[in-house]
Amino acid sequence: MNGAESLVRTLVAEDVTVCFTNPGTSEMHFVAALDRIPGMRCVLGLFEGVVTGAADGYYRVAGKPASTLLHLGPGLGNGLANLHNAKRAHSGIVNIVGEHATYHIKYNAPLTSDIEGIAGPMSNWVRRTSSSQTVADDAAAAITVARTAPGNIATLILPADTAWGPAEKIGKAKPAPIRTVVSQDAIRAAAQALLKGGASASLLLGGAGLRGRALELAGRIAAKTGCQLNAEFAYPLLERGAGRVQVTRVPYVIEAATKLFEKTTHMVLVGTGEPVAFFAYPDKPSVMQPPSCAVTTLAKVDEDIEGALTALAEELGALTVSPLKIAQASRPALPSGALTPEGIGAVLGALLPENAIVVDESVTSGRGFASPTAGAPPHDWLNIVGGAIGWGLPAAVGAAIAAPNRKVIALEGDGSAMYTLQSLWTMARNQLDVTMLIFANRSYQILRGELAGVGAGTPGKNANEMLTIGNPDLDWVSLAKGHGVEGGRATTLEELATQLKRGLASSGPYLIEASL
Amino acid sequence: MNGAESLVRTLVAEDVTVCFTNPGTSEMHFVAALDRIPGMRCVLGLFEGVVTGAADGYYRVAGKPASTLLHLGPGLGNGLANLHNAKRAHSGIVNIVGEHATYHIKYNAPLTSDIEGIAGPMSNWVRRTSSSQTVADDAAAAITVARTAPGNIATLILPADTAWGPAEKIGKAKPAPIRTVVSQDAIRAAAQALLKGGASASLLLGGAGLRGRALELAGRIAAKTGCQLNAEFAYPLLERGAGRVQVTRVPYVIEAATKLFEKTTHMVLVGTGEPVAFFAYPDKPSVMQPPSCAVTTLAKVDEDIEGALTALAEELGALTVSPLKIAQASRPALPSGALTPEGIGAVLGALLPENAIVVDESVTSGRGFASPTAGAPPHDWLNIVGGAIGWGLPAAVGAAIAAPNRKVIALEGDGSAMYTLQSLWTMARNQLDVTMLIFANRSYQILRGELAGVGAGTPGKNANEMLTIGNPDLDWVSLAKGHGVEGGRATTLEELATQLKRGLASSGPYLIEASL
Repeated sequence: MNGAESLVRTLVAEDVTVCFTNPGTSEMHFVAALDRIPGMRCVLGLFEGVVTGAADGYYRVAGKPASTLLHLGPGLGNGLANLHNAKRAHSGIVNIVGEHATYHIKYNAPLTSDIEGIAGPMSNWVRRTSSSQTVADDAAAAITVARTAPGNIATLILPADTAWGPAEKIGKAKPAPIRTVVSQDAIRAAAQALLKGGASASLLLGGAGLRGRALELAGRIAAKTGCQLNAEFAYPLLERGAGRVQVTRVPYVIEAATKLFEKTTHMVLVGTGEPVAFFAYPDKPSVMQPPSCAVTTLAKVDEDIEGALTALAEELGALTVSPLKIAQASRPALPSGALTPEGIGAVLGALLPENAIVVDESVTSGRGFASPTAGAPPHDWLNIVGGAIGWGLPAAVGAAIAAPNRKVIALEGDGSAMYTLQSLWTMARNQLDVTMLIFANRSYQILRGELAGVGAGTPGKNANEMLTIGNPDLDWVSLAKGHGVEGGRATTLEELATQLKRGLASSGPYLIEASL
Repeated sequence: MNGAESLVRTLVAEDVTVCFTNPGTSEMHFVAALDRIPGMRCVLGLFEGVVTGAADGYYRVAGKPASTLLHLGPGLGNGLANLHNAKRAHSGIVNIVGEHATYHIKYNAPLTSDIEGIAGPMSNWVRRTSSSQTVADDAAAAITVARTAPGNIATLILPADTAWGPAEKIGKAKPAPIRTVVSQDAIRAAAQALLKGGASASLLLGGAGLRGRALELAGRIAAKTGCQLNAEFAYPLLERGAGRVQVTRVPYVIEAATKLFEKTTHMVLVGTGEPVAFFAYPDKPSVMQPPSCAVTTLAKVDEDIEGALTALAEELGALTVSPLKIAQASRPALPSGALTPEGIGAVLGALLPENAIVVDESVTSGRGFASPTAGAPPHDWLNIVGGAIGWGLPAAVGAAIAAPNRKVIALEGDGSAMYTLQSLWTMARNQLDVTMLIFANRSYQILRGELAGVGAGTPGKNANEMLTIGNPDLDWVSLAKGHGVEGGRATTLEELATQLKRGLASSGPYLIEASL
């Protein structure tokens, strides 16, 4: 057994069974080990942003880490933006980065770089393995970190000679540690805040608070106290649709977010922090709740959120109360006419299949989708958490690998989709069940609003050059075809419905260009 | 005047007149300033790897820095791989990274990250501007660093409020410092090494040693002493073609490189370091010359290379000797038949236009192109220096912006081209005069050799999944069309010649898929 084999055996033994890869020469022994050892599914990305974004989407849906395989510092650099998103989403990833052989580093060959330096800002843990004999234990340590709640980026640097040198061991990770139980004081303080605030209190949920029993408990608490139920703006996964407790997401636009909280006197945080502005703007606030609002933390993102909500419901006598704000099953009628954001939302709401996974990087185009899809059959909604665009298509890859029997629907701005369009090829090769809607407004539309928002005026010639992505228009059907993905174009709502039905009927990837 | 305006005015005043950009909200005041202040050409990339790679290609051809504009840590992360290549090529770049407003950072909004940490490994200099009043001086300092020989990556972090706050100043950079003159001792030692070594000596050139008078002097020295003339494997720019001094590039493959130097007793380094293996392989050397070879450094990459070669030629009495190894004008005949690397080289040699800029990221397919193109009309040849693939198409963008009246020919492996294919759109929008040859071997062909090279055996199922990029095949003509670029496919050498003639006759971008 060599170091690479001991690494792969350790991963597989610890149920890390998917490897999103873009390898190079220094990773060839790892690649060879994947040949010899059964149990690992290898998914190639033609760009590293696909690899790390897929690992993020995979974790959110599978609830366990995948591994990656990246090629030295520059390969890691290419994956860094989606590693940032994953870190912000608290997704666990065993992020393996190949490196020159230990004795070769001093020669400063062209691809040499400070891998720890590059990895640090986007990792929760970084370790360089020192010999083929220690790879197994180092891998086990990385797995332990990656699956410690709420999920961490564990970067393991693997010099080539530690992969090809001899090894004997298969590593053993620690069982996922149990989440820290919150204190009685925190529970009592949260109960008092909700009782005092009544309808002027907000229970702001994030992380694991937006799923399963935690979400249901939040509904019971709202029924008992009358509090508002809110979701953090950037959440990893929200369970929603008919029969589930509805929450109101904090809006992106500052004026809308501050309006949502303008009468909030008490805010109780569960698995998230204070709502803050995505960006700073001259003369606008950075914090969304009023200065007079009392903020209480019930549970941090890494703590036992479901347990805390159970204890809070018990404290309030809400455990057996029927949950409030359950979404009723209802779909909008299929609309007709020009492609508008409202109309697109209605098409989505009319056709969204049960148990779908919606991967949402629709940016400006999707701001109104919550309402028309609220009564669709139960589904999961994933958002970009770290704000580094180019997340959606890779995350859809990972979600589809994690849940092969569910339909994945990716909602994508055209500007965002372009960052990691290589994802299309990985979908084609693996025949992933992903239907994509590309909102082709030929523009960094969000930046038009932002230019005004920061008080920088209206765009002139140079600014227009930088805010439009037309001239020439991207032809998304050709881009899809080039990657081996079937696609079609919709210029009306009727066409969109036809196209979406076609995508949903397919079991492989299908791309729809919605020409706005 | 605000901080952003003082920054743009400083850049323009110091002849930094091109900005490769991919901005976001935190950079909107910079964008607005570009509207109000004339003299800056803004070139939008739809992905940051295009931006930084273009700045690298621009510097190599224009000989002066461009600026970039990137969006916070993740935007910088996306640009990191080509920043690595640029740093390794000693290209000067004023690398501007937007950041949250100073007072907003503490709120840890989604896009917050350690920008200095991310920038450090790929920068020669990093500074965070602290106020709108200091932006001008900080920009001037960045420009000074960027254009200090041989060229440096100067990263300037620009918090949003330092862009929108008030400013009065236009900064003044220092004139580019004169390169350090090498010592008489170094010149004498180099002369002695060449005289002792005779035909067994190698004059190994890199950096500025591969251009203009420096290259010509090397030819005179070779004529006088009989030494071999070699070029570093990864060079930024080589002037070659009919009438120019010919040099033999150090091969990538270790066996070929060690064979080239097996009889070398003396090696004199000019603007480069010892030749080292790109990667380590079990039981193969890291250094390419024999242990007995005496290595002497005449001039480091940042020193006065032309002056050093002049002094060396004088010392050797070679100043008036006719240069040796001048390439004679000669072109191969247009070949016919199946697409082979040799045949493609002949087509290139037959058609390469005078004064062309060849951007070479052909990886395995291009290893034999040197000989058939050696007698073509004079042209410049740019290589990927840092080994982070995805460099070629962006560098072609930058080269074409730097030299609008020259034909740029990009030679690209299909695997490499996929990393930054968004470059095509920037070429289309700016109607850049770039003809691209994509060598579609449907494979990370280099890794097939590497898998064997590192002794990891022959590829099985998993390895094949990771080394081939077929299944499905990428359709490059559709990918080009999707980005607004015209293209065609060649499956024979006759078709390749027809396609290449079409591309060369066009004044805009043209892509040729050479289906190997």
